[in-house]
Amino acid sequence: MGVVPFGLKPALDQIAAELDVAFDQLLTVPQDSRARLYEAMRHAAMSGGKRMRPLLVAAACELFHIGRDHALRVGLAVECIHVYSLIHDDLPSMDDDDLRRGRPTLHKAFDEATAILAGDSLHALAFELLGDEATHPDPFVRAELTLELARASGPAGMAGGQAMDLAAEHQPLDLPAVTRLQQLKTGALIGFCVEAGAIMGRVPPDSRTGLRGYAREFGLAFQIADDLLDIEGDESEVGKKLGKDAAAGKATFVSLLGPDQARRQATLFVNQAIEHLRDFGESAALLRAIARFAIERSR
Amino acid sequence: MGVVPFGLKPALDQIAAELDVAFDQLLTVPQDSRARLYEAMRHAAMSGGKRMRPLLVAAACELFHIGRDHALRVGLAVECIHVYSLIHDDLPSMDDDDLRRGRPTLHKAFDEATAILAGDSLHALAFELLGDEATHPDPFVRAELTLELARASGPAGMAGGQAMDLAAEHQPLDLPAVTRLQQLKTGALIGFCVEAGAIMGRVPPDSRTGLRGYAREFGLAFQIADDLLDIEGDESEVGKKLGKDAAAGKATFVSLLGPDQARRQATLFVNQAIEHLRDFGESAALLRAIARFAIERSR
Repeated sequence: MGVVPFGLKPALDQIAAELDVAFDQLLTVPQDSRARLYEAMRHAAMSGGKRMRPLLVAAACELFHIGRDHALRVGLAVECIHVYSLIHDDLPSMDDDDLRRGRPTLHKAFDEATAILAGDSLHALAFELLGDEATHPDPFVRAELTLELARASGPAGMAGGQAMDLAAEHQPLDLPAVTRLQQLKTGALIGFCVEAGAIMGRVPPDSRTGLRGYAREFGLAFQIADDLLDIEGDESEVGKKLGKDAAAGKATFVSLLGPDQARRQATLFVNQAIEHLRDFGESAALLRAIARFAIERSR
Repeated sequence: MGVVPFGLKPALDQIAAELDVAFDQLLTVPQDSRARLYEAMRHAAMSGGKRMRPLLVAAACELFHIGRDHALRVGLAVECIHVYSLIHDDLPSMDDDDLRRGRPTLHKAFDEATAILAGDSLHALAFELLGDEATHPDPFVRAELTLELARASGPAGMAGGQAMDLAAEHQPLDLPAVTRLQQLKTGALIGFCVEAGAIMGRVPPDSRTGLRGYAREFGLAFQIADDLLDIEGDESEVGKKLGKDAAAGKATFVSLLGPDQARRQATLFVNQAIEHLRDFGESAALLRAIARFAIERSR
């Protein structure tokens, strides 16, 4: 995984192991003709992702002393959304990618219809998890988690950002437009991850300013790192085809700023993200480490 | 709409008008590059569907004196799920349909990528509606609606049924297998519609046996009527290509039983559905009319 800040690797390894166990239980293959659908979901969901979003949920939950089991269930729901979005984005009519995490994408390993349905199924499972009282005993929390995850992943969030990305093939974007696109496409779901702990801790929305600032700056730094990997990364380590943005003539932070300026901007965003956590003291150590990881990762 | 039982037509017309107003507000086109996504959602969601599922929600809400505004918001959420499933099922890699409700299917009118994203967006909007306190003031109700709609639409429900349907192209089904497939593919969402009123009325699950029986029998009758329309319907009235099941060699209730026996079976299911409502008296008049409509409809 390249350079991982001190203290972060055990946390990443632990959450990855926990997520694999959780997905294994969630996606038990039924003894009927839906077996292929479940095998497809397992292929996509249990393929060694970084689990960065569930780790963000767990780290933000530490601020409010939320139980690990609750944090994990919400992290699992977020990862269901993230994986479904990767499956659908990889489809031939979307980004047409053949490789993901070093393995064939789902429509290549199975078929397009199964890939679409596996994405839809993971999408529904995310909300089944959030509606279930095992995720949190307080129904107000379950309803707010549902509302916020739906907003973050729908047309006002992730799906809307992907629509902007499709539209960008016909009209080149400037820096504010790329920023807005990425705030929807990847930033909204990251924002949910960081805020989920506050929702579970019943922290009122107007006391979440610092967390929202952290999520916003972290999300942009994370995206710049992604853009840098697309031009400078090692394809075998990143596990997907690189250089696609440049080949498609897509505007990114890196194409607009140049790699050196983009790297400086990412460092600035990380420092600002960490500054937003100043009131949280030692309980925010993991969130700080994750912020630094955003720009030091190699996949 | 062919033969509509006395009293049902005004109810169908009213809910259709209410749903169009609600979708018009929900899908206000933004002034940015997501405009095309929203136009696509409007094309699919505001194209004169029967709105049978929202009407079922409203009719079942009458049993428990649930306010019309709450019933409509839940009906809108269900219709978001129903429309998303039609968009995805029509895709070239799924059923490859060009016509829906007499108009081009969404991937024909727009493009495949936009159709996939519009489906995903409506899917998320369904849960955004359910998580919002405007749908119901009691968070316990919102959480239970979320849990049950997710179950009904995910791999244990609608999406699982569609996966069974895909698998059936390779292995012909017998009557129990067709029944199970349809109970997932269309029955689960119908079950949610009928039970939503009881959820909002805080009727405990073990007191919902009659409603579940009604939903089960009605769902099967509705599906047989659908199968009959596929072989006997008027393509211009039904608004989609017919005869597809037979052409694909798919087992249906009608192919397994023959049209006459299937029609008798549907009538039996409708009578049983109505019998399940015997404890509800006059408040179930609309649910009874909907049950009769299931087998008398011509589209």
